[in-house]
Amino acid sequence: MKFSFKNDYSEGCHPDILQALLEHNLNQQAGYGEDEYSKKAKDLVREKMRNPDADIYFVSGGTQANLIVISSVLRPYQCAVSASTGHILNNETGAIEATGHKILSIEKEDGKLTPEDIIQVLESHRNIPHQVMPKLVYISNSTELGTVYTLKELEDLSTFCKENNLYLFMDGARLGHGLTSEISDLTLEKVAELTDIFYLGGTKNGALIGEAIVINNKELQQDFAFNIKQKGALLAKGRLLGIQFMELMKNDLYFDLAGHANRQAMKMKNAMQERGVQFLSDTYTNQIFPILSHELIEKLAQKFDFYVWKKMNDRFSAVRLITSWNTGDEPVNEFIEIINTEL
Amino acid sequence: MKFSFKNDYSEGCHPDILQALLEHNLNQQAGYGEDEYSKKAKDLVREKMRNPDADIYFVSGGTQANLIVISSVLRPYQCAVSASTGHILNNETGAIEATGHKILSIEKEDGKLTPEDIIQVLESHRNIPHQVMPKLVYISNSTELGTVYTLKELEDLSTFCKENNLYLFMDGARLGHGLTSEISDLTLEKVAELTDIFYLGGTKNGALIGEAIVINNKELQQDFAFNIKQKGALLAKGRLLGIQFMELMKNDLYFDLAGHANRQAMKMKNAMQERGVQFLSDTYTNQIFPILSHELIEKLAQKFDFYVWKKMNDRFSAVRLITSWNTGDEPVNEFIEIINTEL
Amino acid sequence: MKFSFKNDYSEGCHPDILQALLEHNLNQQAGYGEDEYSKKAKDLVREKMRNPDADIYFVSGGTQANLIVISSVLRPYQCAVSASTGHILNNETGAIEATGHKILSIEKEDGKLTPEDIIQVLESHRNIPHQVMPKLVYISNSTELGTVYTLKELEDLSTFCKENNLYLFMDGARLGHGLTSEISDLTLEKVAELTDIFYLGGTKNGALIGEAIVINNKELQQDFAFNIKQKGALLAKGRLLGIQFMELMKNDLYFDLAGHANRQAMKMKNAMQERGVQFLSDTYTNQIFPILSHELIEKLAQKFDFYVWKKMNDRFSAVRLITSWNTGDEPVNEFIEIINTEL
Amino acid sequence: MKFSFKNDYSEGCHPDILQALLEHNLNQQAGYGEDEYSKKAKDLVREKMRNPDADIYFVSGGTQANLIVISSVLRPYQCAVSASTGHILNNETGAIEATGHKILSIEKEDGKLTPEDIIQVLESHRNIPHQVMPKLVYISNSTELGTVYTLKELEDLSTFCKENNLYLFMDGARLGHGLTSEISDLTLEKVAELTDIFYLGGTKNGALIGEAIVINNKELQQDFAFNIKQKGALLAKGRLLGIQFMELMKNDLYFDLAGHANRQAMKMKNAMQERGVQFLSDTYTNQIFPILSHELIEKLAQKFDFYVWKKMNDRFSAVRLITSWNTGDEPVNEFIEIINTEL
Repeated sequence: MKFSFKNDYSEGCHPDILQALLEHNLNQQAGYGEDEYSKKAKDLVREKMRNPDADIYFVSGGTQANLIVISSVLRPYQCAVSASTGHILNNETGAIEATGHKILSIEKEDGKLTPEDIIQVLESHRNIPHQVMPKLVYISNSTELGTVYTLKELEDLSTFCKENNLYLFMDGARLGHGLTSEISDLTLEKVAELTDIFYLGGTKNGALIGEAIVINNKELQQDFAFNIKQKGALLAKGRLLGIQFMELMKNDLYFDLAGHANRQAMKMKNAMQERGVQFLSDTYTNQIFPILSHELIEKLAQKFDFYVWKKMNDRFSAVRLITSWNTGDEPVNEFIEIINTEL
Repeated sequence: MKFSFKNDYSEGCHPDILQALLEHNLNQQAGYGEDEYSKKAKDLVREKMRNPDADIYFVSGGTQANLIVISSVLRPYQCAVSASTGHILNNETGAIEATGHKILSIEKEDGKLTPEDIIQVLESHRNIPHQVMPKLVYISNSTELGTVYTLKELEDLSTFCKENNLYLFMDGARLGHGLTSEISDLTLEKVAELTDIFYLGGTKNGALIGEAIVINNKELQQDFAFNIKQKGALLAKGRLLGIQFMELMKNDLYFDLAGHANRQAMKMKNAMQERGVQFLSDTYTNQIFPILSHELIEKLAQKFDFYVWKKMNDRFSAVRLITSWNTGDEPVNEFIEIINTEL
Repeated sequence: MKFSFKNDYSEGCHPDILQALLEHNLNQQAGYGEDEYSKKAKDLVREKMRNPDADIYFVSGGTQANLIVISSVLRPYQCAVSASTGHILNNETGAIEATGHKILSIEKEDGKLTPEDIIQVLESHRNIPHQVMPKLVYISNSTELGTVYTLKELEDLSTFCKENNLYLFMDGARLGHGLTSEISDLTLEKVAELTDIFYLGGTKNGALIGEAIVINNKELQQDFAFNIKQKGALLAKGRLLGIQFMELMKNDLYFDLAGHANRQAMKMKNAMQERGVQFLSDTYTNQIFPILSHELIEKLAQKFDFYVWKKMNDRFSAVRLITSWNTGDEPVNEFIEIINTEL
Repeated sequence: MKFSFKNDYSEGCHPDILQALLEHNLNQQAGYGEDEYSKKAKDLVREKMRNPDADIYFVSGGTQANLIVISSVLRPYQCAVSASTGHILNNETGAIEATGHKILSIEKEDGKLTPEDIIQVLESHRNIPHQVMPKLVYISNSTELGTVYTLKELEDLSTFCKENNLYLFMDGARLGHGLTSEISDLTLEKVAELTDIFYLGGTKNGALIGEAIVINNKELQQDFAFNIKQKGALLAKGRLLGIQFMELMKNDLYFDLAGHANRQAMKMKNAMQERGVQFLSDTYTNQIFPILSHELIEKLAQKFDFYVWKKMNDRFSAVRLITSWNTGDEPVNEFIEIINTEL
C-alpha cells in the first residue's frame, strides 16, 4: 500500500488519547459536555490562552464549527467576508448559506485578508437596505493554502475590525500548524486577544474528532450553547471531546504534534528547493505545493498518494503534499530520495 | 459516588470498540466515510436487514440525524407529524424548525402514533395553500416513554403512509432496546421493510457516538450525502464511526447490549411491581417510570442518581430510571434490596 | 350573484384611496418608500399614536408582516408563543418556521393570551440548552375569533412581558375593528405604549393592500429596513402603500370604516340573539359565529356566501359571518329579515 | 422640480389600469387570486405565449419573485448560477441566501451568460459532496446593464441546460423592454418555450406592482402555490394584480409601453452618439450608460435626476439614464438640446 500525503486525517489519533479513553471508559459522567474531562480541558485551554473569561465549546468538525459560529453571530441581513480560497466558500456544500447568510468573496492569491481588501467590500456595500451588511470577517490560520498570518497582520486586521464594528473570526482547523510554523510570530495568547471568536482544530492535529470553539468577545458568549444543540452538535457523550482536548492540551502535545508535521513538510520542501523546484505558494506549514513535471509526478505516484492540485502547463503541474502528526521519517526520506535521484 | 440511572450514555463505550480503535489506529484510510471500516460496517447492517439496496450514512448523534433526514426529505412547504412526546418537538432546541419545517404535534399518552391520529391531522390541513402540507410521519421506537411498536402497529402505519403519500421515518436512537424488548415482535428486517428511512442508534447503546441512517426508499437516496456534509455531519475521520458500527454489528453485539439493558430494567420493574408499585407507563425496555412516595424517592436518591419525572400528587411522584449496556447486577440488586426493605 | 359575508377583503378599496391614486398618479417620486406620501402617512400614524419616535414600515400583507417581524426580532434559538388560534400557527403555510423559528401553541378557547398561560410555557422550557427559548409573545387584536383585549388585559400582558424579558407583538390585521369595538377601552395610543411592535392592518379595512408595521421598542428599530428588503417586501412603488395609508389616516377614515363594519355585524348579531340564537364566541367586532340549524343555514346559503365554521351536532353548525367597510344596509337587512321570518 | 431619469418606477401606473380598478372596485370577488380578473389575466398571458399548459402566479415584486422561484425549485444542497451583475447577487440583501441557497457568480462584462461560462462552473464543482450542486441558471432579459439575449443565444443556453439537467430561469423584471428592443429577435412565445420558468415584470412597465411568474416546466408546477403563501406573497385582494395584468395584456399594452420607453432612450443615445459620446455598454433598451465629462454631468444634473454609475477617470464618468412608459418627449428633447449645445 502506498503512503498517503493526501491529508492530515488519514490516521486515527495520538496514542495518548486512546490510552486516556481506555483509562476513563467506565466512569459514569454527566452528559452533554458537563463531564469532568470537558471541564478540565476547557480550563487547560483558558490557561494556555491566558484568558480566564473565554467561553469554550467542543464540537466535532470544522464545517460544524464554522456554521454554528457564523449563524449564531450574524443577524439575518448580515454576511461574512472571506478570501476566495476560504473553506466556507468552496468546500462546505453551502453550509453557511444554508443557515441564511451570504459570504462575500475577495479574490486573494495567498489566502490572506488585509484591511485594504475589506475596505473595498465595505465601500461597495453601502446601498442600504438593498445589499447585505458585511459584519464578520472570516480568516483561516494556517490558511487553506498553507500560508500564515504574522502578528502584525493580525493586529492590523483586528484594529480595523474593531474600528468598523466587524467581528473577526479565525478558522483554526490547522491553528496548531499555523502557530508552530517557523516563520510565525503569533501565539495562542495573541490569537485570543485579537479575535472575537476562533477555534482550535483537533481533527487535523491528532484527535479523532474535535474542534474547540473559543469565544473571547463577551457579547457573543450569551446563550451560545443553544446554537450548539440546535445544529445537532451537542454530543451526549461530551467526554469523547473532553478527554481528547485534555490530552492534547497537556504538556503542549497539541503544539508538539503540529510542529512535527510542519518539520516533516519542510524537509521535503527544502530538498525540492535545493533541486530548483518552484512552489505554487511559499508555505511554512504542513501543506506544500511543489510544481513538478508530469513524469516526476507519475513516478512519485507509484509510491505515494497525493492530490494533483493545478495544471500549470503541458509539462508541469502543482501537487499538494500534506504531512501529519504521524508522518514518520521513512516516507519523507523515501520521497526526498526520489527527488534527489530524478532531479 | 452514586450510581447513575439518569441515562444510557453515562459511560464510555463497549471495550470491544476501544480495542478495535487501538488495533486499527495507525492504518491510513481515506477520509469522509470512504474508509474500509465504514464500508464493512455498512455491509454488515445491510446484511442484518436483508436489504442490499439500502443506503447507509453514519452521523454522530440523534438530533443531527433527525434534522438531516427531515430537512432533506421535505420540500419547503411540507411538514412533519409527531406524537406530542417526540424528541424533535421538545428536546432539540427547535432544530427541525431551524431548517424551515413545522412539526405538527398529536397529543398521545403512550408516545405512539396510529393511522387514526394522522387522519385527523390530514383532515384539518386541507386549506390549500394556506396551511403546511403534512408529508413525513415521525415515530420513535422505543419511544421517548420507553414503549414499543408491535409488528402489526408498524404494518398499519406503513400501509397508511403509503396510501396517503406520506414518508414514514423511525427515530431509532433506542432501536436496539425497542427490538429486543420482551414484548416486541418486530425485527430489524421488518423495520427496514416498513419504513422509508430510519436510524439505528449507537450512542445510547454502547458506542461513543454514532447513529446509522438507513434509507430504504430509493427516491430518498438521491444526493443524500450532500445533506450530511452541508449540516456539518461528515466526519473527516469517518473511521471513528465505521469502526464502532463494525464492532456493534459483529455477532449481534448491538442487540446483546440492548437486551442486557432491558433485562436490568425489567428486574427492577418486576421487583417494584411485586411490591405493588404503579408505573406511569407500562414499558418493557430500558426506561421505567415507577410512581414512588417522596420518602422512598429521597431514600433512593442517597444511593442513586435519577430524574424525578412528574409530580403525581403531594405524596407521590414518578421517577425515570434508565439502564444501559453497562449497568451491572450490583446497582440493580442494591436498588431492589432497598425496594424490598422499604415497601 | 349572492352577497358575500365570507370575509372583509371581497371588495376593492375605499373610493378616497382610488381618488388619491388618480390625483397623484403621474408625479415622479423616489422609490422604495422614500416617496412623500409614505412620509406623510407615517407622520400621520405617529401623530395618532402620540409616539414621535416610532419607526414605521408599510408592507403588503399580514403573513408578510408576521414573518418579517418575527424573524427580525428573534435569535435563531428563540421562539414565538401564540394562542392555538393564532393566524401564524394555522394559516400561513409554516411561514414563521420557514424563517427558522418554532411557535409554541397554547390551547385557548377565546383566542386571547394571559400571563398565566405564558408562565406555564416558560416553566416547561427551562431545560437549557435542549429546548427553544420563548422570547416573543404573539397576540392578535381583534383575534382570529373576533374577540378583543381590554386595556387591563393588555397592561397585564405588557407588564408580564417586560418583567420576563419577552417581546410583545400584536398582529393588527383587524386592529381597527378591535379598537372600535363597542366593548373595547383600548386606544391606538395605548397599543403603541404597551407593545414592542405591532401592525395596523389596511387590507381588511378598506385598502387594496397594506399593513403598517410600527416599532415602538428602540432596540428593535435598528437596521429593520434590511429585513423588509430581504424578504421581498420592499415595493419599488412604495407610493402605493403611502397613498393608501395617507388616506386612511386622514380624518380617522380608518376607524370610521372599521366601526361601520362592526356595527353592521352587531345588527345581525343582535337580531339573532333576540331570536335566541347561541354563538360560538361572544364577539363585538366584524366577525360573528352564530350556531344555526342546518335548515336555516341552507336557506341563508341561497342568498349569501359564508363559511360553515364548525359542526356542533347533527342538527346545528356554527357559521362565520364577516362584514366589511363596504357592507351596506341592504344585505344586512335582508339577512335579518330571513332570521326574523324563520326563527 | 427636476425630471427624473433615475428609474422606470418613479410614476404611478398607466391610466387604463386606474380606470379598471375604479370600474371593478365594488364587485365582490373571491380572495387570494381566485378572482375573475386574475383568471382572465392568466388566460391572456397563456394565449400570448401560446402555452395553454403554463401555470401562472402574480406576485408583487421582483425580489419576491426571485426568492420564491429559486427556493421552490432547488433542493437544500443545490445552488443558482448568475452573471456577476445579477440582481439576485448584488441588490436583494441576500434574499436568496436567506432561503438557504448559495449563488455562484460568473464575472461578465455584458451581464449575459453563455454555455461556456456555465461549463466552467460545473467543472469546478465536481467534488461531491463537498461542494454545492449547480442546478439553476439565472439570467435577466433585458439584463441589469440593459443588454438583451438574442434568440440564438437563448436557444444555446436552453439546449445546454437541458443536456446538463439544469433549470433555466429568466428574471423578466424588464422583459417587455428586452423583447421590444430594436435588436431583439426573441418573442414571448420563444421565451416560454426555451425557459423552465420566467416572469413578466409589471412594476417597471406601467403597473403599480406586479410580476407574473410563468412556470413552463410541468415538474416545477406541482404545489407551487404553497411557496407563494409561505413567503408572504399571496395577496388577499389578488384582484389588484389580476386587474393590472388584465389591462397590460389587452391589445399588447404591455409591449407598447416597453417599446415607448426603449424609443425614448434610443433618441437620447443616438443624439449622444452623433456627438461622439462613448457608452459603457452598447444597449438597445430603456437603460443607457453614456460616458460624459464631469462638467457636462453637472450641467445635466441641474435639470435632471440620474445616477452617476461609474467613475472612469478624473474627467469622465458613466451615468445611467432610464426612461419609462411615461417618459414624454419634452424631457427627452430638452436633454438632447443640452447635449447638442454642449458637445
